Amino acid sequence: MVPHLVTALSGPLNELEQRLLDATPVIERWFRLEWMEHTPPLYGSVDIRNAGFKLAPVDTNLHPGGWHNLAAATLPLAVQAAQAAIEKICPEARNLLIVPENGQPSSFYLASLQRLEQIFRMAGLNVRFGSIDPAVKRSTTLALPDGSQLVLEPAQRVRHRVGVKHFDPCTIMLNNDLAAGPPGILEELYEQYLLPPLQAGWTVRRKSRHFKCYEEVSKRFGKLIGVDPWLINPLYLTCGEIDIHEPRGGECLRTNVDALLTKIRRKYKEYGIKEKPFVVVKADQGGRGMGMMTVRDVKDLDRLTDQSRREPTAGADIPRGEVIIQEGVLTHERIHDAAAEPVVYLIDRYVVGGFYRVHAERGVDENLNAPGTKFVPLAFAGAPQLPQTSAAAGASAPNRFYMYGVIGRLALVAASYELEVTDPELQAMD
Amino acid sequence: MVPHLVTALSGPLNELEQRLLDATPVIERWFRLEWMEHTPPLYGSVDIRNAGFKLAPVDTNLHPGGWHNLAAATLPLAVQAAQAAIEKICPEARNLLIVPENGQPSSFYLASLQRLEQIFRMAGLNVRFGSIDPAVKRSTTLALPDGSQLVLEPAQRVRHRVGVKHFDPCTIMLNNDLAAGPPGILEELYEQYLLPPLQAGWTVRRKSRHFKCYEEVSKRFGKLIGVDPWLINPLYLTCGEIDIHEPRGGECLRTNVDALLTKIRRKYKEYGIKEKPFVVVKADQGGRGMGMMTVRDVKDLDRLTDQSRREPTAGADIPRGEVIIQEGVLTHERIHDAAAEPVVYLIDRYVVGGFYRVHAERGVDENLNAPGTKFVPLAFAGAPQLPQTSAAAGASAPNRFYMYGVIGRLALVAASYELEVTDPELQAMD
Repeated sequence: MVPHLVTALSGPLNELEQRLLDATPVIERWFRLEWMEHTPPLYGSVDIRNAGFKLAPVDTNLHPGGWHNLAAATLPLAVQAAQAAIEKICPEARNLLIVPENGQPSSFYLASLQRLEQIFRMAGLNVRFGSIDPAVKRSTTLALPDGSQLVLEPAQRVRHRVGVKHFDPCTIMLNNDLAAGPPGILEELYEQYLLPPLQAGWTVRRKSRHFKCYEEVSKRFGKLIGVDPWLINPLYLTCGEIDIHEPRGGECLRTNVDALLTKIRRKYKEYGIKEKPFVVVKADQGGRGMGMMTVRDVKDLDRLTDQSRREPTAGADIPRGEVIIQEGVLTHERIHDAAAEPVVYLIDRYVVGGFYRVHAERGVDENLNAPGTKFVPLAFAGAPQLPQTSAAAGASAPNRFYMYGVIGRLALVAASYELEVTDPELQAMD
Repeated sequence: MVPHLVTALSGPLNELEQRLLDATPVIERWFRLEWMEHTPPLYGSVDIRNAGFKLAPVDTNLHPGGWHNLAAATLPLAVQAAQAAIEKICPEARNLLIVPENGQPSSFYLASLQRLEQIFRMAGLNVRFGSIDPAVKRSTTLALPDGSQLVLEPAQRVRHRVGVKHFDPCTIMLNNDLAAGPPGILEELYEQYLLPPLQAGWTVRRKSRHFKCYEEVSKRFGKLIGVDPWLINPLYLTCGEIDIHEPRGGECLRTNVDALLTKIRRKYKEYGIKEKPFVVVKADQGGRGMGMMTVRDVKDLDRLTDQSRREPTAGADIPRGEVIIQEGVLTHERIHDAAAEPVVYLIDRYVVGGFYRVHAERGVDENLNAPGTKFVPLAFAGAPQLPQTSAAAGASAPNRFYMYGVIGRLALVAASYELEVTDPELQAMD
């Protein structure tokens, strides 16, 4: 079930892999202690890039879809993790309400919701779907490709509680990133658990805040196992609001792109890496790789901005508003000839599976989360917590997956820091 | 990976299976609440018999071996369950000491110990093996068939703590059933966790006490999902000390065998079951199917006892001391032509895998835990928590395994009651 991979694993990463394997009890204990101090998000998915010499998360999703892409064999792991989560949150709970994305759901998204329902039903909860989309005015039965059905009901607010008709949940699970802002119906819910909390929505979240937290985590983790945090941490810089259509609107962008490229060049030199550095400019707010731009040289940036000033339509790829400029991490993983990027799925503090995002038409330094993407389940079932300590570094897929599981969990720790920083109640206490 | 099974599933069991599937959220919640009240044993394995019309545990082992028989794909489940257990018991723990069986370990047992070490290392603990066998006087390196090695060290008592040289564990895991009685080295340990506790050893344990607790559990569970508890509960009776070599030594045995056969006959009649009832007479104390006797008729008993009085050597199968007379549950499962009996493995409150114990030479009403037994991993990875609610009752292997997982956990709940009843500290409080 392990997809055939071609990875140009070179020195540093093999060393990292070996360190992780040797330090497994230390690492797992470190996570255990972190989770005593910090509350993991209910769930998440982490996009990881493996450059051969560097392994880093590039995006952390706290309202993950794509659950149907996980290998069926990994589902008991998800169920067990969900059971552990429920025991902590609301052990006496009978009911769970899942709030899906707004808008007309694709058949893929429906399959993902169905998988989530299956996981949490098996974990011991009655699951129903409550939409906060104003367009959903009555209970709607939607057909899935496999012939099964899924019922979408309008979420109802009754005084201080949210549910659907004749269904009062203990916990409300958001699978909606609230990009349009938190709707009134979900605000000031003090009697029910809303997970992940409102501040995990994209009106509050900033990628830069997440990676600031991740930087902190990677430093502490790097110290723990004695490796340079850069090997697992993508550098970044931010600009405030930018609009390259304004004169001088691109200045901060230009300066920071240049500065970051220089930083990366230095690191590449330090490790004798022959690759050409690049940065990715993306909206600091919002998921789904909207407005994302790969820049290898400031000149490219100038060309792009000039061009998009001349013909604004062509500038679709240039993000507006707050942007983050992030060190680009190549993916040196391939499935056949297509660039592949692992995505790790987590429930509570457990790695429950993952898959490869594969895109035949996209380059090794481009965003793979785009139309035309295919998915290949990762053989996490037999793998993530079970590396083969005997196998040579870089030679074993299970070891690779254990490494991905560690990086995914580091990003989850960062997300828990992030949600504390933006927790209104904790702020009020300060 | 699912072994090809032939099971004569008839009415009652299909109905039971359907009830369990429909009630999954109710059942899982019920377990959740049970585990809030009662502490699950650290681990266990449960032998289950599936008669087609009846499904029941026949033996619950609180110091299970055979871990190497679990399918590799189920290991992440075991690791995750172990992580959950550690978080509760001793989250800051670095070290775990495993106390193996006494005596010269077989290569099978070594493989089982190695698997346990692997599971708990991946869960985040340094694992070492401390033997309490007086014969183990110095650290001994043992070779496994696969070429790897395992080090057995003599357990050391230093004041109030037990460990091995330069190794001070937070938790001591007993994989030794203490049939010879609790050794002084393990008594009065108030600073470390000894799991399972001393009263889980066979000097204190009685099968009859376990099945008394299980009867209570099965009644409550039967009420929960609305089924006759007999469908999941094996009837039993006990005699005190017996020695059939004494005149009148077999009287209680004779009376109770007769009484139990009558009870079973009545139940068979109620359900229109055509099978011939039988009982199993076994030692109430001690595991590993020692001295176990299948009796279909009191006349057989008389013949056996007479015979063994004439030639005591032939009476090896007749248990002495305290015995339990248990309703025999046929196994109607087959792998090819061999009688098969599922064994479910648990860590903390989670089902982590299982296998079929298969014996070609043994009959459907005989003990399969005997020389010549083979093991076939159960495909629990894709199964136990993920029944296919759509499949027809009895038609789906995953559904079967979910059912086994439920029965296994019911036996584990019974074991937790049992360990409370015999807990010296709880006794002191009464």
